Amino acid sequence: MITRQDCLALDAQDRLAPLREWFDIPEGWIYLDGNSLGVLPRATPGRLQQLLREEWGRDLIRSWNSAGWIDLPRRVGDKIARLIGARAGEVVAADSTSVNLYKVLMAASHIMGQDHPQRRVILSERSNFPTDLYIAESLAHERGWRLELVEAEELPAALTEEVAVLLLTHVNYRTGHMHDMAALTRAAHAAGALVVWDLAHSAGAVPVDLHGADADFAVGCGYKYLNGGPGAPAFVWVHPRHVQRFWQPLAGWMGHAEPFRFSPSYEPAPGIARYLCGTPAVIAMSALECGVDTVLAAEPLGGMAALREKSIALTSLFAELVEARCAGHGLTVVSPREPEHRGSQVCLTRAEGGYAIVQALISRQVVGDFRAGDPRMPDILRFGFTPLYTRFVDVWDAVEQLVQVMDSGQWREARFHQRAAVT
Amino acid sequence: MITRQDCLALDAQDRLAPLREWFDIPEGWIYLDGNSLGVLPRATPGRLQQLLREEWGRDLIRSWNSAGWIDLPRRVGDKIARLIGARAGEVVAADSTSVNLYKVLMAASHIMGQDHPQRRVILSERSNFPTDLYIAESLAHERGWRLELVEAEELPAALTEEVAVLLLTHVNYRTGHMHDMAALTRAAHAAGALVVWDLAHSAGAVPVDLHGADADFAVGCGYKYLNGGPGAPAFVWVHPRHVQRFWQPLAGWMGHAEPFRFSPSYEPAPGIARYLCGTPAVIAMSALECGVDTVLAAEPLGGMAALREKSIALTSLFAELVEARCAGHGLTVVSPREPEHRGSQVCLTRAEGGYAIVQALISRQVVGDFRAGDPRMPDILRFGFTPLYTRFVDVWDAVEQLVQVMDSGQWREARFHQRAAVT
Repeated sequence: MITRQDCLALDAQDRLAPLREWFDIPEGWIYLDGNSLGVLPRATPGRLQQLLREEWGRDLIRSWNSAGWIDLPRRVGDKIARLIGARAGEVVAADSTSVNLYKVLMAASHIMGQDHPQRRVILSERSNFPTDLYIAESLAHERGWRLELVEAEELPAALTEEVAVLLLTHVNYRTGHMHDMAALTRAAHAAGALVVWDLAHSAGAVPVDLHGADADFAVGCGYKYLNGGPGAPAFVWVHPRHVQRFWQPLAGWMGHAEPFRFSPSYEPAPGIARYLCGTPAVIAMSALECGVDTVLAAEPLGGMAALREKSIALTSLFAELVEARCAGHGLTVVSPREPEHRGSQVCLTRAEGGYAIVQALISRQVVGDFRAGDPRMPDILRFGFTPLYTRFVDVWDAVEQLVQVMDSGQWREARFHQRAAVT
Repeated sequence: MITRQDCLALDAQDRLAPLREWFDIPEGWIYLDGNSLGVLPRATPGRLQQLLREEWGRDLIRSWNSAGWIDLPRRVGDKIARLIGARAGEVVAADSTSVNLYKVLMAASHIMGQDHPQRRVILSERSNFPTDLYIAESLAHERGWRLELVEAEELPAALTEEVAVLLLTHVNYRTGHMHDMAALTRAAHAAGALVVWDLAHSAGAVPVDLHGADADFAVGCGYKYLNGGPGAPAFVWVHPRHVQRFWQPLAGWMGHAEPFRFSPSYEPAPGIARYLCGTPAVIAMSALECGVDTVLAAEPLGGMAALREKSIALTSLFAELVEARCAGHGLTVVSPREPEHRGSQVCLTRAEGGYAIVQALISRQVVGDFRAGDPRMPDILRFGFTPLYTRFVDVWDAVEQLVQVMDSGQWREARFHQRAAVT
């Protein structure tokens, strides 16, 4: 059985260990919730002070040119492109994941409306992240289409000749299950459908190769593994074969071919810039850039492949330790065992007390989160492992605290059962 | 003729003068571009440091509850409501002006589609801000409607029985012309149309009374007179009589009745919260809150009415001084003479050299901006007067620099004719 000493040895050998220095992690805390909100990069406060005091405060409106504010969506997009198998000029950072999803679903639905008007179904997974389903539901309503939800294993059979768009999140937010992007994209294309991938739990967490998978559209989140800060701008990618075909409906001035011509009629910019809408969120986008830079800092150390290797080691270790040391406490690992089917998180379930166990862990400075189940899905205790800043000893210490919470029955205390507004 | 000494005396008597202390204005500069980007509030850098280091860096995910992040869109919305004649609970801060405009235009078009399906025209002004026209054009395309553009004086006659929605910007971004919101809303209602007001150049600049005017929908911008910082979140208001009627299509999880139930099907939140979409931009929204607070700081000093009185005095003084002191240089005031038809800006035009004149002024630390004309509209030299921080002596000094630029012919120097990417 692995010991705490072994974990310390693993950390000492870890060539990615220096990346932890890129972050300000609160002393004494073990933070396993980077899949919900990444930690603060050390560079961000200084960068924002410079932005506020010099670029905004001192240089004011000139900074649109002199500080390159106007290029931020493309500059940050190009950086994100390096993490997801896209090329420079194919990604922009903008708006929220939900808004970007609307843009690409509209584009996909219009392309299919032209090419295959009899296809009017968006197919997705019932356990997809709700906002993805809401946006798809709204769009289906708007266009007289239908949203069909199935379980993951039913997807191949559900790819009928009615399906226009397959909409999937690459790594499931609840279970950490990771789809085979290349295989599902192939299956969808073979069935005549387009594919939209939500990379919210993938970008910066697992290697993604959008061109390798021949994907059609992708969106993703800036505040999880990209460490862009709470509510950071999101990103959007469209395959070059589609990008010129449609004028997405959020046709704001920043997506215009010449925004500063102030022409009264819309002419979409060539390429991905037409997926921009309003004025770029300069402050938020600058924080996002600092976050993306923390992931790019891994490039000289092996990049996403090296991060993935460490992530698998961390998640495997956590699952093994929980099973070995919490046996008899009714905790079950619900994330896939096979690393190739698992993102950078491990989820547990328990018939009762999941919320309180997470709260008891937080009281011991170990942060995960809880997602309530329903008749169809079990409660989830969710633990994310960001390889940029999570150490092997953190995994050991987190499990040690879990063992103590369970062995002592501490989680039964009333104080751990009070629900907060945001869970 | 008024003298610089008189202007200093006016400043000494100005009961709003202390509000300038709320801002960090670069020493020696006269900034007359707050209609494009408001200046940095003194509180913002400290507030963002606290947000970054304590709320994000130290407390991480808990801050959604403990720091009230989840309430930001409503809390900031309630503050903005006080400036625009809306009530608490009727406004949210979210997304960009363009995105919010899409939401309300969709809502208005669906309501009219139900009530008066034969009305399929969005009527607007040809010189409306382009992004408003692009979004309207896109929506018209999407819904099989038509966008009709007329000159301001043609609006009443153009309100035919085909018109579903009248879309107007309250204060024109080029000329500073201010519509009579109450009269035009009455006319539109009498003609059977709904009205959407864009308050981008109004909120924080001129008194707005949405309920008094009986308006239907409004959107507005956070980074101009609200001083929220570059690309700040925007806001959206919907009259209570409409808000429950339609589920706007950007149906993201933050607009759900119970976002943290993670239900697979959408159920819109009651009230204006259904106009939220993705995760709130916490960093950007916190900067916006500091900006809105600078305008609310005027409340004990007479609020928007007092700000308006000073704004009229500043803009009138500028127009008079330009006409008196730059006579013979071909500069014409194109903003309305009557203060009641003018926002908080004064625009000049000149047959040639407008861009270079603005650049020459900037080289003399007087910041306005330039908007190129077209065969239909003249070039514009634009000067915004934010009463929160603009002094009477700034007006005098700005005109003095303009006099020198014109008298010396300095603007003819080649260096002032080089165009920047963002104008």
